[in-house]
Amino acid sequence: MSEKFTKLKALIAEVSDLNAAQALLDWDQQTYMPSGGAEGRGHQLATLGSLTHQKFTSPKIGALIEDLKKEFADADPDSDEARYLKVVSKDYDQATKVPAEFVAKFALLTAHAHETWAKARQENNFSIFQPDLEEILEMRKEYVSFFPPADHPYDTLLDQFEPGMKTADVKEIFGVLRERQVELLKNIADAKQVNDDFMHINYPEKQQWDFGVEVATKFGYDWNRGRQDKSVHPFTTSFGINDVRITTRFMEDFFPSALFGTMHEAGHGLYEMGINQEYSRTPLAGGASLGVHESQSRLWENLVGRSMPFWEHFYPRLQETFPSQLGNVALPDFYKGINKVEPSLIRVEADEATYNMHIMLRLELEIAMIEGSVEIKDLPTLWNTKFEEYLGITPPNDAEGVLQDIHWSFGGLGYFSTYALGNLISVQLWEKMNEDIPDIDEQIRKGEFSTLLGWLRKNVHTHGRKYEPQELVQRVTGSKITPEPYLRYLENKYSEIYGL
Amino acid sequence: MSEKFTKLKALIAEVSDLNAAQALLDWDQQTYMPSGGAEGRGHQLATLGSLTHQKFTSPKIGALIEDLKKEFADADPDSDEARYLKVVSKDYDQATKVPAEFVAKFALLTAHAHETWAKARQENNFSIFQPDLEEILEMRKEYVSFFPPADHPYDTLLDQFEPGMKTADVKEIFGVLRERQVELLKNIADAKQVNDDFMHINYPEKQQWDFGVEVATKFGYDWNRGRQDKSVHPFTTSFGINDVRITTRFMEDFFPSALFGTMHEAGHGLYEMGINQEYSRTPLAGGASLGVHESQSRLWENLVGRSMPFWEHFYPRLQETFPSQLGNVALPDFYKGINKVEPSLIRVEADEATYNMHIMLRLELEIAMIEGSVEIKDLPTLWNTKFEEYLGITPPNDAEGVLQDIHWSFGGLGYFSTYALGNLISVQLWEKMNEDIPDIDEQIRKGEFSTLLGWLRKNVHTHGRKYEPQELVQRVTGSKITPEPYLRYLENKYSEIYGL
Repeated sequence: MSEKFTKLKALIAEVSDLNAAQALLDWDQQTYMPSGGAEGRGHQLATLGSLTHQKFTSPKIGALIEDLKKEFADADPDSDEARYLKVVSKDYDQATKVPAEFVAKFALLTAHAHETWAKARQENNFSIFQPDLEEILEMRKEYVSFFPPADHPYDTLLDQFEPGMKTADVKEIFGVLRERQVELLKNIADAKQVNDDFMHINYPEKQQWDFGVEVATKFGYDWNRGRQDKSVHPFTTSFGINDVRITTRFMEDFFPSALFGTMHEAGHGLYEMGINQEYSRTPLAGGASLGVHESQSRLWENLVGRSMPFWEHFYPRLQETFPSQLGNVALPDFYKGINKVEPSLIRVEADEATYNMHIMLRLELEIAMIEGSVEIKDLPTLWNTKFEEYLGITPPNDAEGVLQDIHWSFGGLGYFSTYALGNLISVQLWEKMNEDIPDIDEQIRKGEFSTLLGWLRKNVHTHGRKYEPQELVQRVTGSKITPEPYLRYLENKYSEIYGL
Repeated sequence: MSEKFTKLKALIAEVSDLNAAQALLDWDQQTYMPSGGAEGRGHQLATLGSLTHQKFTSPKIGALIEDLKKEFADADPDSDEARYLKVVSKDYDQATKVPAEFVAKFALLTAHAHETWAKARQENNFSIFQPDLEEILEMRKEYVSFFPPADHPYDTLLDQFEPGMKTADVKEIFGVLRERQVELLKNIADAKQVNDDFMHINYPEKQQWDFGVEVATKFGYDWNRGRQDKSVHPFTTSFGINDVRITTRFMEDFFPSALFGTMHEAGHGLYEMGINQEYSRTPLAGGASLGVHESQSRLWENLVGRSMPFWEHFYPRLQETFPSQLGNVALPDFYKGINKVEPSLIRVEADEATYNMHIMLRLELEIAMIEGSVEIKDLPTLWNTKFEEYLGITPPNDAEGVLQDIHWSFGGLGYFSTYALGNLISVQLWEKMNEDIPDIDEQIRKGEFSTLLGWLRKNVHTHGRKYEPQELVQRVTGSKITPEPYLRYLENKYSEIYGL
């Protein structure tokens, strides 16, 4: 390793340390911090954030990157070193292209927007939030202008979350999805409905906790390198490859919330825990993208956790844990219940079959906003029209409609599609894994997940951020991100459940 | 406020934020961090530590301090602004006088010393630790040399923990203590001994936790601005005046450990919570010294928590909580039991009457080390001789003798006396408080602590680090730190209990 490379790595390692410290401040804020700590925590996060930015964007780092690019000109472009430099260089570009004053102004705006959004939602009055959202949109457009022109202005926003992904790709994918998922939902709506009353009775928290931990442990979540705590919104965070924490929340009258939530977060956690240890304290120690991250959480939550083989193993244990609640519910009925399809107003409560429709709606609106083909004031109406079209129901008010998500209030345009992409990727990986491990169902039926986890580690986890999402999916499955496998999966699964 | 003062305050506020972030990293390490996180946490603490040091010692801050000293020349020296500048200036001096290479070298040495100390203790072999301790002593002497000459070289070390305190003062105080405490212990040893068998039976953790929380709540510990967690070594930490956390540990067969531990840490916590809110994000937001801090923890733990009026109120509740353990123990016997005097080998387990003897022994050795009047290799023998003289027992081995404390391994010379000074200060404050609140016993007997807390807030807590310890004690009690009140208290209390 050249002296300059060693120097760059040392500087970037310190930036990683500071990012980890920020992540801990955030984790604590969401888990254990007493309410009195809020104001001070805001100051601590702001100070540490600006200091980290300052350290990372120092001209010293920029100069090292430029020198090393020349030095690496003939290096193997797939080597860890070359990829490290590529990722650092891209992050550096993204961090330095945006003026500090812009960042500060945007932070003020979104702090204000968070308040107006919350108020608008509470009072069910979109116009309270409208002016801030208009300004956020203008500033997102300005943000785009700091970067070289792309094929589509939305590309620049998308690229923050799905590196290398193009708006045209996403549009094409969602074009295929839209038609067939709408069709599927119509057929399900016309079929005999599924009963899930047993999910809406009392399940004590303690037993829910223990069962979730048991499942996560079987999945391979390493408690020596992680832990689970409670928070209002479940999340996964990492302070390094060997300290990856998940959180969950409990609804005593709806046990799937915590159980599938734990599987979901454990999926995120297993990804972070499986990254090559050599990448410690480097920007390679993270997921390839939000979409790929979501593919891991959805894989464990849905493809494993909502499958029949999984419950053939675990259902007796669950019945044992909750004898009065589930003693009289047969496995096939339980399986149907946890897979019930029911168009609902709220994205975060959506089932597998409807989830992508929520995303598509938002993605289309975001692209229209950036293209300027819709005015902010018209969003509520447009939202409701599309909602009716895609899900067959109309939100009774804006609080449960256009105002339901926090994302736009913090300026997170370009973010939503990653949730849907995660679903698609999860099934693409799953199909390939099935080819490589033909008896996977048999293994899951025995509560055996180590071969599956090993496969994911080798093909996905270990690489961290080394490959961009399209590239990673191509390397593993031989194809770019495509909706076909996911549609096949949905259609098969729900045809069986609903007798279509 | 002048522009320069505003600028200095803004810079120092950021340093406070970074210190708070470090404190959180440390809190997490001791409470919730999974073992896998240790290596990464070490990096995070090192990076944040050096960055904070760098930021605080920037010449920009030094120049502002110098300019402001001139600007403040005619200001009221007792104003918050003048005291703020004095404290910042002193901290800045202390941080800049010591070369960065020295700090780094000392960090390496103490990291190694921690290992050799642990090994020496485990193998009961002082010579394993001896070379490192010799080097630590040399480096402490070198540290002293970075500062202007003091009356005694130990002054410079002491001043880090007890600002303004002199070795001569401490020697004088301990001279008085030694004689009378040794005498008291002799008399107690000759008296009829107290029975405390009831303390050494099983007390389930859950009830211990709840009772401790109940007491801390009554004391006035504000759970909206704090919390209690478990850790191996109990401690109090603060991330700001409105986020002050305590920890405790449980021994199921020795309930006083957690209960008096919680009172002790709550005492530290109440101090931090009571600091003037105007001092937020400034170096005034802390205790006046370790000794004054300890006075607050010992006051709640011993003067309140081990007093008869306290238990007249709480003992029925404790009996209710532990009916099978305490149902047949009468209050006077309980009171004697929790105040039993028993010379023991280990400082942290010492009772009120013997505690200071442990401290005195260490202080005398430390001063001798710095003066060069004892060689490190002779410490074990000297320790044992003094131990026999002061406590009447001889340590059977060095692990339970000279090797029992971790402090020297991290270079903490100058630290121990603060524990004893805290005891003295606690009773000085207590006597004055009794004059101001004549019916305090009556209030405590009713479980009423708000007047007491109010008195401490007004006289001690609110000032934070504004006054140095001697000055603070003088302002409140009209006298400097003196052993007389403490000796009076001990002699009265134990004469009654042991019928001397």
